[in-house]
Order: sequence, then structure tokens, then C-alpha cells
Amino acid sequence: MLTNVLPTGTGLVGNAFLEQLLSIKQSICYNIIYVARSRAALISKDYSPLNLGSSWKSALENADEKPLELNALVGYLQKSPQKVILVDNTSSSDIADFYPNFVGAGISIATPNKKAFSSDLKLWNGLFSDEEGHGLVYHEATVGAGLPIIGTLRDMIKTNDKVEKIEGIFSGTLSYIFNEFSTIAPNSVKFSEVVKVAKSLGYTEPDPRDDLNGMDVARKVTILARIAGFEVQSPSSFPVQSLIPDELTSVNSVDEFMSRLPDYDEQLTLLKDAAARENKVLRFVGKVDFPNNVVSVGIEKYDFSHPFASLKGSDNVISIKTSRYSQPLIVQGAGAGASVTAAGVLGDVIKIAERL
Amino acid sequence: MLTNVLPTGTGLVGNAFLEQLLSIKQSICYNIIYVARSRAALISKDYSPLNLGSSWKSALENADEKPLELNALVGYLQKSPQKVILVDNTSSSDIADFYPNFVGAGISIATPNKKAFSSDLKLWNGLFSDEEGHGLVYHEATVGAGLPIIGTLRDMIKTNDKVEKIEGIFSGTLSYIFNEFSTIAPNSVKFSEVVKVAKSLGYTEPDPRDDLNGMDVARKVTILARIAGFEVQSPSSFPVQSLIPDELTSVNSVDEFMSRLPDYDEQLTLLKDAAARENKVLRFVGKVDFPNNVVSVGIEKYDFSHPFASLKGSDNVISIKTSRYSQPLIVQGAGAGASVTAAGVLGDVIKIAERL
Repeated sequence: MLTNVLPTGTGLVGNAFLEQLLSIKQSICYNIIYVARSRAALISKDYSPLNLGSSWKSALENADEKPLELNALVGYLQKSPQKVILVDNTSSSDIADFYPNFVGAGISIATPNKKAFSSDLKLWNGLFSDEEGHGLVYHEATVGAGLPIIGTLRDMIKTNDKVEKIEGIFSGTLSYIFNEFSTIAPNSVKFSEVVKVAKSLGYTEPDPRDDLNGMDVARKVTILARIAGFEVQSPSSFPVQSLIPDELTSVNSVDEFMSRLPDYDEQLTLLKDAAARENKVLRFVGKVDFPNNVVSVGIEKYDFSHPFASLKGSDNVISIKTSRYSQPLIVQGAGAGASVTAAGVLGDVIKIAERL
Repeated sequence: MLTNVLPTGTGLVGNAFLEQLLSIKQSICYNIIYVARSRAALISKDYSPLNLGSSWKSALENADEKPLELNALVGYLQKSPQKVILVDNTSSSDIADFYPNFVGAGISIATPNKKAFSSDLKLWNGLFSDEEGHGLVYHEATVGAGLPIIGTLRDMIKTNDKVEKIEGIFSGTLSYIFNEFSTIAPNSVKFSEVVKVAKSLGYTEPDPRDDLNGMDVARKVTILARIAGFEVQSPSSFPVQSLIPDELTSVNSVDEFMSRLPDYDEQLTLLKDAAARENKVLRFVGKVDFPNNVVSVGIEKYDFSHPFASLKGSDNVISIKTSRYSQPLIVQGAGAGASVTAAGVLGDVIKIAERL
């Protein structure tokens, strides 16, 4: 079998993906016919495989063609003599909004880009169609990177299990921050101190408020809830607790934000100490709770003996309780990082190719 | 798409499988053309779907046809106008030994039956062929029932990750026994007492020695090791610790075995108390260790803070360390039971049908 693969986006994940794709033993032949980064592209006009050896990085850096405009890209791909998989390793909304056009034209998509799956419900509904001739859409790496979360949840739904509760820690950054801040062994570390260390280690976004606002977690919870059958309109249609003090939301500079954050430590310290007195720790979790009809994101307390309490480093974890799994199924491990994210995307590419 | 499904075996798993298959919303049309139990079968001579409503149980009980002999079954299936998936819900060696004939004839297989995958290496090698026209073989439920273990491990290998260490608790029975016997909070319960309770709860085989000999775990470890690239000749080609005292191996009656087991409690009590003094618990685990080139099954010690130490009930757990996952990926949950096992098999049937 011959499948044309089209990686777009060559950030850290895009680079790791291309390296992994070029390294695998191929029982299916993957031809790369188009590679794009934001301002340049390598394009095979006649659909013959691009000759990407170990020098693909410099080839792409020296590429002088511009990426095709999205409508033109669909036209180009529709004329491909082989089936096509578009690999979107960007975090672009523009490409995500265009997914329905690709899928409708029979082009399959593998992507870690959360945008299309966590925006408006209408966009989501247009993506997963059983219609003959539509492309397939796989997005394992949108939640928990390469961890088997999306596939596991979809298998449960396809085999007619009923999800009762999903609960998990879906941000590597907030996992690290709470695992260090609120521990089983008592400590007196302040929240702002942990944020500072996380920032210095490169675990946060350049502006840590992009992690602390909870929106990345809200997007992931939106995706999981929708797969489980909860019609979530958008990530802002349910309660999301922000860890940014109100007064610091509109502060312009990151430096000022970081220097003023210690003024607001007291409340979280009180919360953590109160939890410790009940033999509990604080964790920042996303929840989908069917019996109570609630989707939410925020701080929760867990017993020292709960699997979430002994989480380490920046690991993600998900707990899924269903009719069949009365004791929840738990998946835990690295939920961020270029290499595991790329592996999640490549796993999807292989699954799509096996089906085409 | 139309796929013929052929469930064989109507024990607890077989029954749960049929009920689940008949309940799912079908975007793929699954026709059941043959259902067999050990001594009777329903057979559709003209390959039209059997009319299995809610009364399939009594229909099968009243069936007066004998199951086809295996060679005849291959012949019958080869003439099917639709692609065929054989679902083997038995634990039969005879059927397992015959898998290569089915696969070679283009018939796909979904099964929780460990036999074909954990016997001679030659049988294994004949099953997974990329040859055009061969059937597909999926066996997620052979390890950890419906937990995403086999699929996750295969994805890692396909995407060219390197497995360094696999470690896990793969027997629900021995999970329960050790979770009760060796706990973080000190207890003085004896090993034989826990075995007795497990037996009375129906958690053990009728003869508990069939669990205590470690061979079920050895078969599962054989399967995992082979997927990870370790050429294990057979489940008896590596060290497997038996929990049956030598003197009781050849005792004939189960009652005599149970009544004499307390005489041998001392050694395990000493082991458990020594572990507790190091803040550790005992667990019965299977391991595949690539750097040390070792596959093994037996009792190991784990720190109170290790995820295996806080395991509850009869849950299974697997920890997979790879080049990409330096902190291991962990999957945990019910690894036995008719409903989750059947769901694992049905998930495989759907994946095969999507590829056919």
C-alpha cells in the first residue's frame, strides 16, 4: 500500500514527527509529497515522493516556495493518485477551521492540534462523518500526547460502554506545580515559588498565565467530554477555575506578574494546609461527571492513597469510570514533550494508513 | 461495509461478547453466520445472517447441528462472499493450533485465548504476516482483558520506540491475594488465609494451584515479551516462581491442598515482615528487562510510594519504560471479568472490520 503523507508544521513536534516517520520499518510505504513550515514548503508537483534524506532540515530551510493557500492545497491533494494523510503539527486555528474541507474532499487528518476539536461544537460535528468518501480524523495526541487516552475512550463508546466519570490531570505544567506544592510529606513551599522554579525550568509557557488560566485543560476536557457523549458547546461553556489572581490578569509585563504573585500565596497555602489536615493533597483536575451532569476544571482534594496523590514530575493521568469499569481504568505517564507527542501522531498515521 | 462474524465459545466471555455485539450501534454491518459452543452450533449454510434476536441463548441450546470440524470450517469460511472474522472465545489449544490455517486462508481472528500466542515461538511467528491475502490477528484481551495494553505496546514498536522494561501484575487472582496479604498498613494475616478467602469468593480457579503455579502470568509475559521483540521460546523457557510448596504439588485433592497450605505460611510471613521493615510490600509480577536480558515471573518488593503498592482489589497494572517514556507509562484497572474481556474482543472485531 502507498499512502501520501503531508506533514505541516516543523516546530519541536513537527521535527520529531519527521524524524520518527523517516525511521520506521515500513510495511506500508509512506511517501512524503509536501512538507510545510510557516513561510516555506517543499512541494512535489507530480506527486512523486520528495527525496528527504537526513538533509530534510536544511532542504526545508532553503526551500523557496511558499506553502499553498488552503483552498489550493485541497485542490492539489484531491488530484493525488494515492490516498492522502494530512499531518497538522501546527497549533493554527486557520488550518483547524479548514479541516471539514479536507475531510469532505476525502483527505484524512492526523494531528495534535487541539483547536478543531475544542472550539465550536458545530466544527466538531462536521469532522466525524461516516459518509462514504470522507477522510478519517485521528487526534490521539490532543490529550495526554502519546498516552492511550482518546483511543481507549473511543473504544469504550464504540463497544457501547457507558462513561460515568472522567477525572484527570491533563496539563504537564500544572501537574508539576501541584505535585511540588502539595505533597504527602509536609512542606512549607509557597505556590509562587513553585511557579518560579517551573518557569526557570522551561516547564511553563513564556507567560505562565497561559498555563495558570486553566484554558489548556478546559480544551482537553472539552474533547474528552464530547467523545464520551457530553454535548459541550465550547471550553468557555462550563466552570474553569483560573489560578491567576484577579488583580494580576491585566498586568502587562510577565516580570511584574511574577514579582507580584507572592502577594497572593496565602489563600492557596491555607487551602493546602487544610487539605493536609484531612490527609489530602490538592491537584488541578478536569472532570466530566455524567450522574451530576457537570463538566468542570479546577482544584480538587485527593486522599494520600489516591493514585493522583502519588503522581510525580509532570506526568498526566486519567481515570475513567464506566458501567463496565466500576473501579476506574487509569492511564498515567508523560503527557507532554516533542518525542511522545510525535509518537502519538505517528501512531495515528499508521492506523489511518492501515484503514485506507 | 459488511463483515461476517463468527463467535465460537459461549462461556461467560462468549455470552457477554454476543450480548455486546448485538447491542452496538452499527456503522459497519456485522452479520453473524456461525455460532458454536463445544457440542452444538448454529450454521448459516447460505451465508445469510443468522436471525439472532434476544433468544439466541435458547436457539443455541436447542441447536442440533454439531460444530464443523476445523478443516471443514476453513472450507466453509473461504467460500463466504464477505470477509470473515473468527472470534475465538474458547481457551482451546486445538483451535489455537489451527490459527495459521485460518489466517493463511484470509480469515481474520479476534480472541482472548492466550494459547496461540504463548505456546511455541514457531506458532507465533506464523501468525503475524504482512503477506497479501492473509487475515489479521488481534488479541488485546489476552493480557489485562480490555485494558489498552497490547495495542499500546504494538503502537510503541510500530513507531520505532525501544522498550527497556515491562513490569506488571497480570493475574487478577494473585493481585487480590498479594494486595490483601502485603499491605502498607501493617497486618498479621497469613498467606493461606487470604488464599482461602479468595477461593470462597470465586476469585481463584477451582483448584487454586492453577493460579499459584504462576503459569497464567508466564503466558501473558511471554506474549508481551514477544511483542516487545524478545524471542521467548515458550512460557517454560524462563524462571517462573511457583507459590505452591513443593510437597503439595502432587497432592491429589484440592481439599487436602487447602488444609495443608497453612503449614507453609511461615516463609511468606517472614518475607512480608522483612519487606515491611524496608517500607515495602510484596507483589507477584512479571518482568521483561532488556538491559539485563531477563524475562521472569515471581515475587518482587515495591516501595510504599510505588504505584504497584497502592493497587486495590484484583486490578491489573502494567508499567512500560521505553526510550521515549523514561518515566514509565502505566495502565491500571480491571484485568479480568467477562464484561471487560468481551469489550476487549469486541474492540478488536471493530478494528479488524475497519481495516477489511
